[in-house]
Amino acid sequence: MRLYFDDFAVGQVYELGERSLTREQIIAFATEFDPQPFHLDDAAAKDTIYGGVIASGWHTGSTLMRLLADGLLNDSTSQGSPGLEELRWIKPVYPSDTLSGRSVVEETRASGSKLHLGSVLMRSELHNQRDETVLMMRSWGIFLRRASEVVGEIRPD
Amino acid sequence: MRLYFDDFAVGQVYELGERSLTREQIIAFATEFDPQPFHLDDAAAKDTIYGGVIASGWHTGSTLMRLLADGLLNDSTSQGSPGLEELRWIKPVYPSDTLSGRSVVEETRASGSKLHLGSVLMRSELHNQRDETVLMMRSWGIFLRRASEVVGEIRPD
Repeated sequence: MRLYFDDFAVGQVYELGERSLTREQIIAFATEFDPQPFHLDDAAAKDTIYGGVIASGWHTGSTLMRLLADGLLNDSTSQGSPGLEELRWIKPVYPSDTLSGRSVVEETRASGSKLHLGSVLMRSELHNQRDETVLMMRSWGIFLRRASEVVGEIRPD
Repeated sequence: MRLYFDDFAVGQVYELGERSLTREQIIAFATEFDPQPFHLDDAAAKDTIYGGVIASGWHTGSTLMRLLADGLLNDSTSQGSPGLEELRWIKPVYPSDTLSGRSVVEETRASGSKLHLGSVLMRSELHNQRDETVLMMRSWGIFLRRASEVVGEIRPD
């Protein structure tokens, strides 16, 4: 079933599957987008608080995005996102960590001006294989409303 | 000069340079991290509110990260980031848009428990070649404090 705005309810949980990042992927991403020493090589990272190469937080966030796309959005009427309320990089992500994703619906808000759209606020987390939360974010997604709902709204009588 | 926590002051502005994303880069990033139709091909994107392929918001955010690394962090004592207070994807980013970055210091906060560290909150924006703001985020960065400052603090007399 393709998810519409109307299908989301506060408290619903979506298990999003898992992915892991290899050392090569971590270094390749960082070389392109986040070339700080602790993302690029172990020797340089040894002198930092991390003790070894860790994934760029943008790599970790993009990995959660992929899990969201595969596990939820690509089976929905997603129209994109206006943004994040917050994002926390809670624990470092090391090569070969296995990250599993989970989203919970926190709020749903029908648009007052665009009657065919509604926004859903989700709290999403990534956990590693030691059951530690490595990333948490609260993101808005925009979805289509079912036609029947919209018709109901513009003819309130 | 390598920037320490002590070198940041509220209101300071950093111009971060610019980058643009080709259609091929946009599609390659989306294929790996955000395979939604409006990021993958023009035919599929034509039926959406965007009218053509647009960059994944994570690609845009990662591009700002790269500008921050090149323009600020790699000449600093950056120790990573605990997270973002907010992120807004304000306008779509289309192939070949040129994005320029700019950061302003919003707040500085010395750590109470780790005397050698301090956090800096920056408001960063990406603007396109039409001078539209396409992305805004408020992110924390952690930096080392200069030794002299720390000595002063642990010997308050």
